Amino acid sequence: MGLTSWPQKVVLVEVGPRDGLQMEGTFVSTQDKIKLIRYLADAGLPVIQATAFVHPRKVPQMADAEELLAGLGSLPGTLLSALTLNQKGVERACRCKLDIIEVSISASDTHGIRNAGMDFRQALARLDSMVRTAIDCGRRVQASLQCTFGCVYDGPVAIKRVIEAVKAMVDAGADGITLADTTGMADPLQIKKVLEMVLKITGSIPLTLHLHDTRGLGMVNLLAGLEMGLTRFDTAFGGLGGCPFVPGAAGNVPTEDVVNFLSRLGIETGIDVRKVAQCTGRMAGILGHLPQGRLWRVLVPPMKS
Amino acid sequence: MGLTSWPQKVVLVEVGPRDGLQMEGTFVSTQDKIKLIRYLADAGLPVIQATAFVHPRKVPQMADAEELLAGLGSLPGTLLSALTLNQKGVERACRCKLDIIEVSISASDTHGIRNAGMDFRQALARLDSMVRTAIDCGRRVQASLQCTFGCVYDGPVAIKRVIEAVKAMVDAGADGITLADTTGMADPLQIKKVLEMVLKITGSIPLTLHLHDTRGLGMVNLLAGLEMGLTRFDTAFGGLGGCPFVPGAAGNVPTEDVVNFLSRLGIETGIDVRKVAQCTGRMAGILGHLPQGRLWRVLVPPMKS
Repeated sequence: MGLTSWPQKVVLVEVGPRDGLQMEGTFVSTQDKIKLIRYLADAGLPVIQATAFVHPRKVPQMADAEELLAGLGSLPGTLLSALTLNQKGVERACRCKLDIIEVSISASDTHGIRNAGMDFRQALARLDSMVRTAIDCGRRVQASLQCTFGCVYDGPVAIKRVIEAVKAMVDAGADGITLADTTGMADPLQIKKVLEMVLKITGSIPLTLHLHDTRGLGMVNLLAGLEMGLTRFDTAFGGLGGCPFVPGAAGNVPTEDVVNFLSRLGIETGIDVRKVAQCTGRMAGILGHLPQGRLWRVLVPPMKS
Repeated sequence: MGLTSWPQKVVLVEVGPRDGLQMEGTFVSTQDKIKLIRYLADAGLPVIQATAFVHPRKVPQMADAEELLAGLGSLPGTLLSALTLNQKGVERACRCKLDIIEVSISASDTHGIRNAGMDFRQALARLDSMVRTAIDCGRRVQASLQCTFGCVYDGPVAIKRVIEAVKAMVDAGADGITLADTTGMADPLQIKKVLEMVLKITGSIPLTLHLHDTRGLGMVNLLAGLEMGLTRFDTAFGGLGGCPFVPGAAGNVPTEDVVNFLSRLGIETGIDVRKVAQCTGRMAGILGHLPQGRLWRVLVPPMKS
């Protein structure tokens, strides 16, 4: 019958300030980003991905990474992370106040080249050095694999490639591993099939799922992850997000919607769903459009335009 | 582990022309509605809810019910249905060319009064006569229960009330029964709990789920229904829809997204997902906004506004 056994507690990693904002045409001021992240921390998010160390011409929204982290200060009870795609990004991250450095490569050649200028082999060859650099500067390392479940350019991703990447992440000494459905192409059967193989390799290293709702399957895929025993998921307030190099990309599973869903299943997150929804409502005003998430519209009804 | 056994084929009932359009501020011309329904029939939808016989002042979009059905003619391979909320509606429906009359009452007193001027008891008392009238004019009868899983006004709905309504529907001779999550308040555990009890009463009478995505749980609730053996679901192209008397209501689970999901699970629907997405893209132009469904944006990328 499914739905019968799952963890009592789940950790949600808020990626809205990074994955969410990077897709927005309107530049959100550093001060507004700082307010946003403080607000999310106050709502109880235990981990927040604040920014990315990427090329400012490629992702202008993340151009203020250093300034943002300097301005944030410490947030009691919340770990801050940032995304990096190459050695230079890791080195920039190491010079900032940060708890976790996410070192990310793509399982897809074309996506990897567009996103980071490297195909899978090239990125994999650099992974070890990126992870070591982050560890050497005393940070926790979250290694992540983009396009794990398929790519809009290259089609299906061979499970062999996923296994190879995860093994390299384990060998490099990553503290955590994220499998990302960057293109929203996963389905619950595939999630379970991939997790079954990957969980044998990761052992005690916690595995996180990062799910985009591009085809409306974000929540069923999250459920599949839960049923496989996962206890960590990336989510974004308001369901913001996407990838600038994935055509038609939709946002991540919305933090508010996931908190409510988990709570209905009797699973605790420690997150105040109403505060997250208020945060989404506030950002809707700044961004000038209504985020795609559902629950915030019920809790904080937007003005009709 | 869940997700291991489900039907090979599923019937989707397209409610977009009724539930979808009734929420739209822009009046869609009768000619455009006829084109829309023909297009959906051509996409392979086996049942289409074309309109509702309700008061034109309450739901102006449905004011052309008679004209629409007269203009539609017959659609080979597709059954046409219409929604009714009272005796007068059933009698209007009986004078039109229609295969199925949906006779609908609400499990919630306040919602029922706002939607149809009757609380649960009053509506239940009239159900038998409505069903008989529809049967006597030679139509199939689909009896439906709105707010089965909770109400924004009255809160939780007692399972006793659901059982009582379903028993009355069976006794009245309904050919099919629909449980509607009008307010999008259901969760998968509740769906399974309610279905477990209701399926004992309905026996061989097919049960349909009607799911709104108001809190982002439409698809996980559909999966819960599948896992309980259901083979019929209401869906709406583009995820349009809502109830004019449910504040903050979001649309139904999107037809395209559900067809794709089921196909990924190896379940056939006989529906051409691309044609449905094209239909949504076309209606987006007529309605002047982007429907909330996900997949159509991938298959028929909307113009940026």
